[in-house]
Amino acid sequence: MVAAPDIQVTKVQHSKIKDVDFGHLPFGKFFTDHMLVAKYDNRKWESVEIKPYQSLSLDPSLTALHYGQSIFEGIKAYKDEHGEVFIFRPYDNFKRFNTSAARMNMPEVPEEIFMEGMRELIRIDRDWIPAEKDHSLYIRPFMFATDAMLGVHPSDTYLFIIILSPTGPYYPRPLKIVVEEKYTRAAPGGVGFAKNAGNYGGSLLASTEAQKQGYDQVLWTDAFEHKWLQEVGTMNVFFVIDNKAVTPSLDEGTILDGVTRKSVITILNEMNVPVEERHVHVDELVKAYQEGRLQEVFGTGTAATIASIQTVKYQDHVLEFSEKDWILSMEVKKRLDAIRLHQAPDTHEWMFKV
Amino acid sequence: MVAAPDIQVTKVQHSKIKDVDFGHLPFGKFFTDHMLVAKYDNRKWESVEIKPYQSLSLDPSLTALHYGQSIFEGIKAYKDEHGEVFIFRPYDNFKRFNTSAARMNMPEVPEEIFMEGMRELIRIDRDWIPAEKDHSLYIRPFMFATDAMLGVHPSDTYLFIIILSPTGPYYPRPLKIVVEEKYTRAAPGGVGFAKNAGNYGGSLLASTEAQKQGYDQVLWTDAFEHKWLQEVGTMNVFFVIDNKAVTPSLDEGTILDGVTRKSVITILNEMNVPVEERHVHVDELVKAYQEGRLQEVFGTGTAATIASIQTVKYQDHVLEFSEKDWILSMEVKKRLDAIRLHQAPDTHEWMFKV
Repeated sequence: MVAAPDIQVTKVQHSKIKDVDFGHLPFGKFFTDHMLVAKYDNRKWESVEIKPYQSLSLDPSLTALHYGQSIFEGIKAYKDEHGEVFIFRPYDNFKRFNTSAARMNMPEVPEEIFMEGMRELIRIDRDWIPAEKDHSLYIRPFMFATDAMLGVHPSDTYLFIIILSPTGPYYPRPLKIVVEEKYTRAAPGGVGFAKNAGNYGGSLLASTEAQKQGYDQVLWTDAFEHKWLQEVGTMNVFFVIDNKAVTPSLDEGTILDGVTRKSVITILNEMNVPVEERHVHVDELVKAYQEGRLQEVFGTGTAATIASIQTVKYQDHVLEFSEKDWILSMEVKKRLDAIRLHQAPDTHEWMFKV
Repeated sequence: MVAAPDIQVTKVQHSKIKDVDFGHLPFGKFFTDHMLVAKYDNRKWESVEIKPYQSLSLDPSLTALHYGQSIFEGIKAYKDEHGEVFIFRPYDNFKRFNTSAARMNMPEVPEEIFMEGMRELIRIDRDWIPAEKDHSLYIRPFMFATDAMLGVHPSDTYLFIIILSPTGPYYPRPLKIVVEEKYTRAAPGGVGFAKNAGNYGGSLLASTEAQKQGYDQVLWTDAFEHKWLQEVGTMNVFFVIDNKAVTPSLDEGTILDGVTRKSVITILNEMNVPVEERHVHVDELVKAYQEGRLQEVFGTGTAATIASIQTVKYQDHVLEFSEKDWILSMEVKKRLDAIRLHQAPDTHEWMFKV
């Protein structure tokens, strides 16, 4: 454990928790009473504050708005049956956050600010953590460039902020996805592995067009041939073929190194399910389906955790799955949930106590 | 001409113009007294205001900061010797702005808000337009997503803002550039042709690494082989080979459809210089240089106008140029400047009177 940073704390006079209907929590819509704000200037992190959640006063020439130096993470905290609060693998998100920062030419956030700042903030807003099934406290650390000038160069100043949102399930039902053959999310040498804002903005048109066709999300493909499968919308993807779990490899730097993805790989290994991280061609998928060897498809991500996939469309091929097929994904989800809710031993030390 | 929108105008009580040293105007650092702000909500542009330049109050969960729906344009206004004010080809930027908006799943800005709003704002702040050589009023229209929630989907609300900055030359000296072989700016199917914030943030690490090697900028290459030349930093690029001007074509959607680029092509045509818009391989460039057929290299862009390039480095090859080589680029710049400053006939109707 690292030392807690010197945090100046200002609490709200009146909590707004009573205004929130905890029986109806759309993803990322309600925020807790407080937020953490750290300022970077003069080549160092100059201050860390926890204060009432409030609007930011930002110059219209803000570098982040014009040149997109902006990154984030998504993490979840859970309350166990004894009311104890745990965060799921935040150190992995902390490391990935700084990987994103390096790619976007931004300063690293020190461990004590990210980890201990988050812990302190959650302690203060712990009453906001929902206890219902599939509910959690979604933690959103983010950093953006705050220089007020229009020259294209890395900003000298940044804000690192953590906000918290009590949240229900992200995808309430199984997904229908379509293999994307026109738009590209990322190419080798680009920023696909970083959790930067621009990756998401660039992806919206593809999902909107998929939705017009009746699908929830796209299954991204490579930039060159649009044949090699990458990730689903904002999640990593797993295919179960011949009782093996296959997931696209990270070697080209085009997909996100998902924390849920690697947790799922660990759990599959424990279940003695072989896992292959490798390139996956869409033709392999279609052929396996036609031969009855493609057993299930699922997405993994912090927001969605495990998302069952009901339909994969590729050209004239429609690959269909139903509840009876989601055997492995449901078992993985059960084991993951048990660890998260402290109902199973935390053998990998994934749960970070608040 | 379209009708002027209904603009609510609030002027400053005291101008800050006397605080600015017009003999020293770094690019995009000082802003005029006023800004234009239009709000989009309920599927329409609800209000347009001109008001004192001021900070914006934005929620920490602002969609633009998290998911990068953020685009911009760069335009310049000039004062001629009679004190009349003209904007250079703003309608082309207006059209490109809405092309960027479509790609980023954002609403289009109507012509009357973009064009007449800009005109009205410049009228109010016309005293800020510098008259010195290579100086101008830089106009920055931009739009970003303002929903306050964390679900990944297109925002329902947006702000369109125009800010103005009196500015001096962008690159005060000829540039040294290096052919980028590691990082990728854009791939076909991506957002390379759009002027969205993320493209710039993603490019900064490459320029920083180039600067560490003693170069000003990178010459971007394709995502697949890193051999096909694309653009320079934030500019389009022209190569003069065998008395012909060659510039990368726009057909793959990976480079910006520059307004200065197409103005330069028009002027070159008028000068009876053949222009080829096509794919350009780095080996062709090196071979032409070795055989004494590569005569000059220059960049074009709104901020930089015409930027002379002194060095192009590719692996062990260092292609050097000096003042005596910049014949065509200087002639193009002279003709472009003459049109901009109203010293030559505006035969193409490029100058939009304020």
